[in-house]
Amino acid sequence: MIALEGVDGCGKSTQARLLADSLGALLTFEPGATAVGSGLRHLMLHSEGAMSPRAEALIVAADRALHVEEVLEPALVAGRWVVTDRYNGSTLAYQGFGRRLDRERLEGLLAFATGGLDPDLSVLIDVPLGVARGRIGAAAADRLERLDAGFHRRVAEGYRTLAAGDPGHWVRVEGEGSVEQVARSVAAAVLGRLGPPS
Amino acid sequence: MIALEGVDGCGKSTQARLLADSLGALLTFEPGATAVGSGLRHLMLHSEGAMSPRAEALIVAADRALHVEEVLEPALVAGRWVVTDRYNGSTLAYQGFGRRLDRERLEGLLAFATGGLDPDLSVLIDVPLGVARGRIGAAAADRLERLDAGFHRRVAEGYRTLAAGDPGHWVRVEGEGSVEQVARSVAAAVLGRLGPPS
Repeated sequence: MIALEGVDGCGKSTQARLLADSLGALLTFEPGATAVGSGLRHLMLHSEGAMSPRAEALIVAADRALHVEEVLEPALVAGRWVVTDRYNGSTLAYQGFGRRLDRERLEGLLAFATGGLDPDLSVLIDVPLGVARGRIGAAAADRLERLDAGFHRRVAEGYRTLAAGDPGHWVRVEGEGSVEQVARSVAAAVLGRLGPPS
Repeated sequence: MIALEGVDGCGKSTQARLLADSLGALLTFEPGATAVGSGLRHLMLHSEGAMSPRAEALIVAADRALHVEEVLEPALVAGRWVVTDRYNGSTLAYQGFGRRLDRERLEGLLAFATGGLDPDLSVLIDVPLGVARGRIGAAAADRLERLDAGFHRRVAEGYRTLAAGDPGHWVRVEGEGSVEQVARSVAAAVLGRLGPPS
């Protein structure tokens, strides 16, 4: 199980697809990969009022519980490799570092939601924030995107802190090159850590 | 802050309304009292597939976080009395005793969701399960209602265990009499514990 992580606009969705293709892995994503999860994603991204960080974290966690139960665990039990576009790292970066929720309580919440399922490897696609913002451009219409620059800086720094603090489960890949260059870096990092699928 | 609790069909919604009227209190309810919470309630009650207990608990907790932030805390801060139709007791009874989620982890989840806001008093409207089922009748169409009888027995017994185990914060009222009789019992129990609103 491999999670691709990073700020919006870092290119991780494209890279997740390419990596899954190259590994013959199931490609999935958060939030919203399940039927109920899709409703949760809609509520979270399009809610008109300000949502509290606590409520947002709980909705994200509910979506993850559904994703684990309906998608991730069945695929892993069947022996498939899985690549997911976002997982626990996103919650720690966005709701923890970004929204300043207590990390220990968030980790407790995530352990409850996932039943303890952690990725074998989380890959941080790291690009300068200005590059990521430029890529998003006018598409940045949803609620999360409208948050202030300080929030996005905390998320980006938070990701680097997570990756640096747990090198056994994280690898950081430079995301500034061409799509093909970054894809080669991601594949090399993953195969270097996990070896090829059997 | 007073929470009315009990199994579906016990009469607590009617009693919550009468109690709020008699106290001049704000009447509110769970799940679904906020805009996003209403969407969460819909997802939870009308989801087609089986939802895992963990995901259900997380959605309930998200709804509660929104309820606390948008409704309960503002009213309490403004000095109002508040009567809510369901609160933490429902989660402990349904998701804990009913769905067999670990109580300690559920309590941790609820503490996260509520920021520690607990009712001054939870009132269990206790009726024999057969009476409650009879009152619900054909209206019992939503997902929770279709669960098996063992589940409902565990919820009903769970409520009694919660009330008996924390007599400082719970009072049990017999719910089998007429609406007026039960309302008098509820009002007497509440005023006996909390005194009249100043």
